[in-house]
Amino acid sequence: MVQHLLTTNELKVEEIYQILEDAERFSQGLFWKPEKQMYTANLFFEASTRTKSSFEMAQKRLGLSVIPFEVQTSSVQKGETLYDTVKTLESIGVDTVVIRHSQDRYFDELVENINIPILNGGDGCGHHPTQSLLDLLTIKQEFGSFSGLKIAIIGDISHSRVARSNADALTRLGAEVIFSGPEEWFDYHSLSTSRFKPIDVAIKEADVVMLLRVQHERHQKMGSFTASEYHKKYGLTLEREKQMQPHSIIMHPAPVNRNVEIADSLVECERSRIFKQMQNGVYVRMAALKRSLESLGGGNQYETAYSERKIYSI
Amino acid sequence: MVQHLLTTNELKVEEIYQILEDAERFSQGLFWKPEKQMYTANLFFEASTRTKSSFEMAQKRLGLSVIPFEVQTSSVQKGETLYDTVKTLESIGVDTVVIRHSQDRYFDELVENINIPILNGGDGCGHHPTQSLLDLLTIKQEFGSFSGLKIAIIGDISHSRVARSNADALTRLGAEVIFSGPEEWFDYHSLSTSRFKPIDVAIKEADVVMLLRVQHERHQKMGSFTASEYHKKYGLTLEREKQMQPHSIIMHPAPVNRNVEIADSLVECERSRIFKQMQNGVYVRMAALKRSLESLGGGNQYETAYSERKIYSI
Amino acid sequence: MVQHLLTTNELKVEEIYQILEDAERFSQGLFWKPEKQMYTANLFFEASTRTKSSFEMAQKRLGLSVIPFEVQTSSVQKGETLYDTVKTLESIGVDTVVIRHSQDRYFDELVENINIPILNGGDGCGHHPTQSLLDLLTIKQEFGSFSGLKIAIIGDISHSRVARSNADALTRLGAEVIFSGPEEWFDYHSLSTSRFKPIDVAIKEADVVMLLRVQHERHQKMGSFTASEYHKKYGLTLEREKQMQPHSIIMHPAPVNRNVEIADSLVECERSRIFKQMQNGVYVRMAALKRSLESLGGGNQYETAYSERKIYSI
Repeated sequence: MVQHLLTTNELKVEEIYQILEDAERFSQGLFWKPEKQMYTANLFFEASTRTKSSFEMAQKRLGLSVIPFEVQTSSVQKGETLYDTVKTLESIGVDTVVIRHSQDRYFDELVENINIPILNGGDGCGHHPTQSLLDLLTIKQEFGSFSGLKIAIIGDISHSRVARSNADALTRLGAEVIFSGPEEWFDYHSLSTSRFKPIDVAIKEADVVMLLRVQHERHQKMGSFTASEYHKKYGLTLEREKQMQPHSIIMHPAPVNRNVEIADSLVECERSRIFKQMQNGVYVRMAALKRSLESLGGGNQYETAYSERKIYSI
Repeated sequence: MVQHLLTTNELKVEEIYQILEDAERFSQGLFWKPEKQMYTANLFFEASTRTKSSFEMAQKRLGLSVIPFEVQTSSVQKGETLYDTVKTLESIGVDTVVIRHSQDRYFDELVENINIPILNGGDGCGHHPTQSLLDLLTIKQEFGSFSGLKIAIIGDISHSRVARSNADALTRLGAEVIFSGPEEWFDYHSLSTSRFKPIDVAIKEADVVMLLRVQHERHQKMGSFTASEYHKKYGLTLEREKQMQPHSIIMHPAPVNRNVEIADSLVECERSRIFKQMQNGVYVRMAALKRSLESLGGGNQYETAYSERKIYSI
Repeated sequence: MVQHLLTTNELKVEEIYQILEDAERFSQGLFWKPEKQMYTANLFFEASTRTKSSFEMAQKRLGLSVIPFEVQTSSVQKGETLYDTVKTLESIGVDTVVIRHSQDRYFDELVENINIPILNGGDGCGHHPTQSLLDLLTIKQEFGSFSGLKIAIIGDISHSRVARSNADALTRLGAEVIFSGPEEWFDYHSLSTSRFKPIDVAIKEADVVMLLRVQHERHQKMGSFTASEYHKKYGLTLEREKQMQPHSIIMHPAPVNRNVEIADSLVECERSRIFKQMQNGVYVRMAALKRSLESLGGGNQYETAYSERKIYSI
């Protein structure tokens, strides 16, 4: 059966661990390629630098050939549906597609009749499983395990693709998740209110301070705040950073609004894992692609151990 | 002499058969590559998913390296002419270009001084030779030969790049072509009126029901019809499909307007060759590229028979 | 230390000669590749055909893998800064970036914390070092050396990225540079007025007539001239071409405004090196990339002499 990667929620704990383990091995120089030449396409219906270029890098490191696809110059402009677009790519021989789309659960209309694996690069305000997985990898590299950790997810929770799926996955993996930020952006319906804490408490208690991006492009306006008010009230200011525990780390999915969610000078400070997260994004996507391509059968893919010539070192 | 592929009309019958034969061999796993690394570029001045991605796939399967070109970020924005753009690509070492352009016969101003093969990916309302060739390949795969077949081309004939060239090629190959659809979209000047038949007659008689896309983007409005009126009057409805002969097939160049030219549920029905056409598009374009690249001389390209490791299976 | 290529001015004379020599060897078939797979990205925030496709070609000839980046579909649309964009690409494993940006000296904010080489593909009205180097290569191929040559740079000097840096480099290499064109476009502040000459004098004296593009996109209007007035007053007309010395050549960075800077029929005349310049652009960019990639260490790159199989012939 074809292995899509659509949401973190549908991954069993052992599947999450398998992906993280493969990603870790890729970070150490694992060399894996499909036996025959395979083709892929990246359909990004929303702007992206990190996710798109990270998938491209992962695909190229696995030796996949990427068929370019740009929404603005495609037949989507003539009204072609997402289903027909993906079916077309399947027909011409594309083996797997990555899709980002503004519609929540766009993939529900695809999975029945599309016979190639779909990797979700973000759907609406819904899911972003590879972002979630790279966050998990970054935390695991730092602390070895998830059990007993306290993760504070802070900011625009209602619009965040990762807040909910990260919370779910982290809890299943044994961590404790607390939320903070503007209460009006907190979703009382789907998240237990008992875990909402004031920002200064959250920051003191957390092993991981995970900031979320204020998504100007999804808000009509930035709540009732100016950028500097948001920073003062809910951002990681220089003062708040000093309240963090010595071993605690800072994460952010980026792109960062500097001096809004986080003080400019903290983006690359010693605690920050923000660019490390991006690095890990490549390894996690290599692992996710490997999982999906292996599900296509064949099974003759070869794999060699990390050699002294570190081919995949970043 | 450099072998362009500009129109189907200028291809001799034996050239058509040669391309179809090569395409058929590619579909069976023929492996062909130019001896030295060759470079190509795809200049699409109009939106495309199928043609562009199909050419990209064909190029990659032949081992060509594709130099990206996007109209919106090119010097075309500074007023550079098509000729100077193509001459530039020739100068930097591109070996062959694919062009789609809204101007009828855009290539007339190029062929004199451009010394690399041009493959026409569609010009205005004029020609689209690789679409025509993939239609021919699909028919040939189905029926073995063209002689005695009856092909009904139905729909927006006046704006169709392929209606006229398909009609010409099919007639030369021994098939009989009939037209149907709205009479106001039928071109009495360039096509014999004697071959125009009412839709319900055409569908009963045809071995191949070839539907054409209603090109919203070329019409000011969709004639005097709404979409559902068009479907009822000229579309392949569920009722009309039942009138087709048992062995007859459905074709459409896509993108399909579902429930306009054809009922939604027929797009992937057993008779439909719509996605098969797309698959064949890759093989036909591989054959067309091979023909053009061979014309550049060298002749040392290597070719191996289909091996048990089916490299080009789609 | 990482070797950027930001401006021609900062290159020492011996560095210029080294790049030209490598470029010349690439034009003769030198084969050079980095030992391990390397990755690159081209960030063009302004339209380009020549520079972008020429860099792509150079990258592919060196075996680099290109990670696509399109400004309009990137997180730049969400307000991400240039620094964060480049840092992201560095984080995911890109080894070198090419950047064109409308801001003068955009690179000043990058060089401190970016640890991969930046190749400047043009900044504002400032610099365009690879254009400058390809001009130098074209002149050197023609005349063997620079000493004693007279180069007339004619046209829109104030907006030209190359006028100033070409003038500087050519003077340092032993050539004499004179300027001509509309006096109102001449920059009396930064260029010595003593070298400004009327167009008909400049054209008679010059060994190289280097025309500059009238940059409609940077001017509010084309000075006080219509296109045909400009051509008559400051363009290379058919009559003026006859006044050139028998051995003199014509250059232009392109895209050419035909019948503005130069008469249409002279663009591809015997004296013209305009398309030769584009060809040389690939070799110069290969040399510049080689220089930057070698600065990343490793040093195990292999290099083979020109073999009978001329791999890099254009």
